[in-house]
Amino acid sequence: MKQNDSLRAIIWRDNALHLLDQRYLPHQQTYLELLQAKETADAIRDMVVRGAPAIGITAAYGVVLAARAAYAKNAGAWREEIQADMQYLAQSRPTAVNLFWALKRMEALFPSLEGDPEAALVAEAGRIHQEDIEANYQMGLLGEAYIPKDTAVITHCNAGALATGGYGTALGVIRSAFSADKLSQVYADETRPWLQGARLTAWELLQDGIPVTLLSDGAAASLLRTGTVSWAIVGSDRIAGNGDVANKIGTYGLAIAAKHHGVKFMVVAPTSTIDMSLSSGEQIPIENRSKDEVLSLNGQAVAAQDADAWNPAFDVTPAALVDVIVTEKGVVEHPTAEKMAALMAK
Amino acid sequence: MKQNDSLRAIIWRDNALHLLDQRYLPHQQTYLELLQAKETADAIRDMVVRGAPAIGITAAYGVVLAARAAYAKNAGAWREEIQADMQYLAQSRPTAVNLFWALKRMEALFPSLEGDPEAALVAEAGRIHQEDIEANYQMGLLGEAYIPKDTAVITHCNAGALATGGYGTALGVIRSAFSADKLSQVYADETRPWLQGARLTAWELLQDGIPVTLLSDGAAASLLRTGTVSWAIVGSDRIAGNGDVANKIGTYGLAIAAKHHGVKFMVVAPTSTIDMSLSSGEQIPIENRSKDEVLSLNGQAVAAQDADAWNPAFDVTPAALVDVIVTEKGVVEHPTAEKMAALMAK
Repeated sequence: MKQNDSLRAIIWRDNALHLLDQRYLPHQQTYLELLQAKETADAIRDMVVRGAPAIGITAAYGVVLAARAAYAKNAGAWREEIQADMQYLAQSRPTAVNLFWALKRMEALFPSLEGDPEAALVAEAGRIHQEDIEANYQMGLLGEAYIPKDTAVITHCNAGALATGGYGTALGVIRSAFSADKLSQVYADETRPWLQGARLTAWELLQDGIPVTLLSDGAAASLLRTGTVSWAIVGSDRIAGNGDVANKIGTYGLAIAAKHHGVKFMVVAPTSTIDMSLSSGEQIPIENRSKDEVLSLNGQAVAAQDADAWNPAFDVTPAALVDVIVTEKGVVEHPTAEKMAALMAK
Repeated sequence: MKQNDSLRAIIWRDNALHLLDQRYLPHQQTYLELLQAKETADAIRDMVVRGAPAIGITAAYGVVLAARAAYAKNAGAWREEIQADMQYLAQSRPTAVNLFWALKRMEALFPSLEGDPEAALVAEAGRIHQEDIEANYQMGLLGEAYIPKDTAVITHCNAGALATGGYGTALGVIRSAFSADKLSQVYADETRPWLQGARLTAWELLQDGIPVTLLSDGAAASLLRTGTVSWAIVGSDRIAGNGDVANKIGTYGLAIAAKHHGVKFMVVAPTSTIDMSLSSGEQIPIENRSKDEVLSLNGQAVAAQDADAWNPAFDVTPAALVDVIVTEKGVVEHPTAEKMAALMAK
């Protein structure tokens, strides 16, 4: 199954960054055209674009926009001039390490550039984007190998084409398994509070003709109890050096319920999501977002006025609850620090 | 802490049943006046009133309205005349056994009644209502005894004044613990899809000045991992003879996460919720509600068009995950069939 063009979250065209505004999906499909690094960072923070790999790619294009402005302002010292925008991009969201990975990769090019840096940086951002798509296809194949015939799976949040350069991580495996005629059904947690499952995953899968059934996050344990589902497949925003996995809030509860019922748990993420500088998931910074995301929906109050809310955007699933991590470099079963180090040394 | 009059879900006044329309809480507080058994059953089905004990009380008043109509139509054969309405009331919702319990208790009076049955039936429905409130106070005291000082608790759905004759089951224990100055914080799962936690529990607790923090259902496992919470306290819609507990969808996942983190799990329900005719929770009929409850909210689509959804309204938590069942007759720790039988024989 190849990339569906209506599912392109990030497009670089006519010297501008175009982002599909995921806040209004699936009801409206509109692209924002961005020409400044600052508005790119704001788009990441405000979740115009979301999903760790997509955030990384977007940040890479943000560096292009930052370099253009810096070079226009002070061609001789654009490397100093760009630093404020690099900082601003880095501060957009804290958990997805792909953001920092992409910024570092772009910055690593700076010393070697001569004259106007834009063309070289556009090319590098394009490579990051293209490599991510290729990684997704590779992970799709590697993950699909674990899925037997006639399998129903459950996924959480959106780790699809919309969360990546294209094709998807968890949904890439699901797409590959569907192409291989192995999938009987995809169950998708609606994924409160932002409803990525209901708004994005269901929309993506329906466009590809993959059978999808939504459920409230709280219904997942009951579903697993029925024995219908044999794999839970999710993406990740950051994987620590010991294999602990940060992902969208609700993933950890799903992983506990999966273990309780003997349902296998697969995490699909490119190596750009792996942060070997952290020895455990406890060190992963977890973003707390506004309580308004819990208390209202589309501007409409859905809770008692004056109620307080706790709204962590991510949680950490310990490696002990993970059966397999699928990356483009290979898979790690029952992850440990040693196995993760061996993978990254490949 | 005594009953807060703004939290009365069910009022019998001026020969009519008045139900606080919980579909529009907390934004609108309006009462529906009901004069027919059929509209009473419809109100139960459509969730004007919800919560197992409240459904039972409402059904009892529905029998009064049914008897009035039957007696007016055929005074000599009202017991036959009423049967269609009794059936209709019984078919309103399948899971909460308090409905059937209340209908049986009302019907048990029929043979002894002479002349117009209304006054006697109103009195019996009033007793069911009053006994439920008293049971809640008693359970509040019994449950509160398990709560140490400075405890944070988590609850799911709404098992409060709005779900009962008044005061509440799970929220009755929480009110009693708050009155005893033991509670540091109540965390309330928002409880998708109907958002009973966000709309009802937060509203109830705020009115009583009890500190409440909402969270997405998927965030509960992360919260329990922090060690902040030492008790999960929930109500029930039906408890089987072996102590398996049916409650609002999402309860089972919370119970699994509680066990995983060593958080204690308390179920609070009057004995009218216990169904000794069922030997296990697998026999409890679980209501599947419309997929629209998952796919839209307040008439607004929140999911991809054409998506399918699975929407069981309840789940079953096995007795092995329950630390204590609190009833008005006493408590059962680590419930078994033997212990449940001993409780019911009291």
